[in-house]
Amino acid sequence: MAISPDSRVDLDRFWSTIEASAKIGKGRPGGLSRLTLGDADKAMRDLFVEWCEDAGLSVTVDACGNIFGRRAGADDALPPILIGSHLDTQINGGRFDGIAGVMAGLELVRTLNDLGHRTQRPLVIVNWTNEEGARFSPPMVASGCFVGKYTLDWVHDLVAEDGARFGDELARIGYDGAAPCKAGNIDAYFELHIEQGPILDAEERDVGIVTGGYPVRGIRASFSGQTAHTGPTPMDLRHNALVAGARWLTAIDDIGWDFAVYDGKATGARLTAWPNKPGILSDSAEAVCDVRHPDPITTRAMAEKMRRALHESAARAGCTAQVEDEWVWGGDIFDAELIGSLRRHAEAQGANWRDIESQAGHDAYHMATHCPTAMIFAPCRNGITHNNEESCTPEDFRAGLAILLHAVVERADRN
Amino acid sequence: MAISPDSRVDLDRFWSTIEASAKIGKGRPGGLSRLTLGDADKAMRDLFVEWCEDAGLSVTVDACGNIFGRRAGADDALPPILIGSHLDTQINGGRFDGIAGVMAGLELVRTLNDLGHRTQRPLVIVNWTNEEGARFSPPMVASGCFVGKYTLDWVHDLVAEDGARFGDELARIGYDGAAPCKAGNIDAYFELHIEQGPILDAEERDVGIVTGGYPVRGIRASFSGQTAHTGPTPMDLRHNALVAGARWLTAIDDIGWDFAVYDGKATGARLTAWPNKPGILSDSAEAVCDVRHPDPITTRAMAEKMRRALHESAARAGCTAQVEDEWVWGGDIFDAELIGSLRRHAEAQGANWRDIESQAGHDAYHMATHCPTAMIFAPCRNGITHNNEESCTPEDFRAGLAILLHAVVERADRN
Repeated sequence: MAISPDSRVDLDRFWSTIEASAKIGKGRPGGLSRLTLGDADKAMRDLFVEWCEDAGLSVTVDACGNIFGRRAGADDALPPILIGSHLDTQINGGRFDGIAGVMAGLELVRTLNDLGHRTQRPLVIVNWTNEEGARFSPPMVASGCFVGKYTLDWVHDLVAEDGARFGDELARIGYDGAAPCKAGNIDAYFELHIEQGPILDAEERDVGIVTGGYPVRGIRASFSGQTAHTGPTPMDLRHNALVAGARWLTAIDDIGWDFAVYDGKATGARLTAWPNKPGILSDSAEAVCDVRHPDPITTRAMAEKMRRALHESAARAGCTAQVEDEWVWGGDIFDAELIGSLRRHAEAQGANWRDIESQAGHDAYHMATHCPTAMIFAPCRNGITHNNEESCTPEDFRAGLAILLHAVVERADRN
Repeated sequence: MAISPDSRVDLDRFWSTIEASAKIGKGRPGGLSRLTLGDADKAMRDLFVEWCEDAGLSVTVDACGNIFGRRAGADDALPPILIGSHLDTQINGGRFDGIAGVMAGLELVRTLNDLGHRTQRPLVIVNWTNEEGARFSPPMVASGCFVGKYTLDWVHDLVAEDGARFGDELARIGYDGAAPCKAGNIDAYFELHIEQGPILDAEERDVGIVTGGYPVRGIRASFSGQTAHTGPTPMDLRHNALVAGARWLTAIDDIGWDFAVYDGKATGARLTAWPNKPGILSDSAEAVCDVRHPDPITTRAMAEKMRRALHESAARAGCTAQVEDEWVWGGDIFDAELIGSLRRHAEAQGANWRDIESQAGHDAYHMATHCPTAMIFAPCRNGITHNNEESCTPEDFRAGLAILLHAVVERADRN
């Protein structure tokens, strides 16, 4: 039996979970700094597990620390529907990025409990470990392992800048679960997330239906130079790896501006060097850059400029460069049927909605390689995110939560 | 009574002190990593003090940890002549930078002991604390305090990147001396140093008489931006402090090349940012740059370009910049009479010598603000320094040591 089209989640109850989360791992004023596998992450996980159990979910933790809260289906052998996001934050993070998606799944389950509605298929609420990559690089590593992109050993051996090993930290906080980190047969994955861009807010939209991800291409590169005295070493004998890196970041920023008019972006996000001290030219450096553009062919052209700029910048500084890692994200990866369903429910709710492309990475990108996947975006003030000023109101989630509820239940009630 | 013009130091004995030093605080192969006030610095200081005492010097340590080994003069009330340099090294340092100058002073005293020659004026061998600035910034801080440029409290409160406080580390290694860090009446200061540039080696010179320092102007600047997501944030809404810093370093390198034909140099030596992580635009950054040119007016023009580039780079990245610290070094700071004496002794020794300008900072720069000062440069292979490949032979020091001996004794034997 279907739920009533008028059924709604409890927006206040949802908001209370956001507020409880906002007390765990406080960062700058109004923000969170809840880095993966730290003590605050553990505290948040413990509370989430408690909430899941209170809602009657059976909780399992896998070998990457991903937490699954499972609600049995009427036909419990059918492949489940997963709904999730992440509870970790950036170092200067906000209260909504990721968190809203996990709490949306929890609230959906609580609502179904109130309604006394048992879906045909099982529902699983997920918290993915280390979405942000703020402590352990790369980001979205545990959902990547779940779908077979990374091996478990490789993930466990990741080392943070603070020297901690991923696997050791998992064990330390007690989230080295017994379940294998491996996706089985999954019917669909839904993720609600804040937009992290200014479009919905600027257009005063209630909600965005995510049709895909901006194609993103990134490179982590190293530069090799030679230490020498900053004073007497003539310009033509210098091999300053820090300057090689700085030149690359500058070139990347220029690429971003060259394509900005059609909404292209290019980012120099990280640059480290050694010794990186006054008085001495740096021996080595490492940098992370990426390019994004709505058109995949243009993204590829930008990425090629990024690659040429890498070697050009190194040569200009008398250094050599090497690509240590590169990645491609995004494209039209989400499921047409799920997108259609979300659009239909948005209409049915009378929401002021639009199609939108994601410009950030999400665990949903990995899930989309494994099963039908879709995302819903809630507006956030001025698109500010990865910042303690990240700001939303309960109203920002009203439409998204209603669409999520009805789309998930419709999907889950299929035989 | 004067010493014989044929008197020489014991080059093997001098070299043995270099070799003993090369065992303390080893770094990369062939090099040293003897950071200021670390355990290796303490071990080297202890050995130096032992050698001083064995040579009959009376040792005092001042409140900045500077070590003075004093040899009484025949008229011990006359202002002393100081000879010194530093025993700390860069993080990837060599075996000669600084060390050769301290050991030259020690060898000079040992030679006078062998000759049974008591100079009219007292001689003082000095090891200056933290010349390199590789652990505590800025460099040359303790000679600066000695001549009144920095206050003792300010020096003691310097904090290293490893979190250690200068004053605490001094006490920890037992070199928080009782003597005030304050220069009294000093007759002259001599410092022998490796060139740290390629000129003497390329021209196959025995020695350089330093006529002054390349004018150097430096800036430590901070950049303020705003964290945001690297993905959805449009180029025109970005305030990426890391890019502001990278643009400044790039501009500085361009300035260096613009003036390279007349031996100008410009260096981006250090860039840090926060959070400096993939996925997030950086909120703040800090950078250190400097410019050098033989002509002081050109240096001033380069420095003004450096300053304009700072604010231009910040503006281009949507950030603001602030000068946190700036400095000017060098110029014709050394004493004409001492330079004349060194040239005369170079001729008398039959050395293949030339005038040369220093392009690095030295404790002698601070001393020159207080008393007549001069420097002697020994050649080093290809001018490589601040690098474990720094390389010299005993022969590289033969002429410099002979000139130092005779110039110091001539000066010290004045009534």
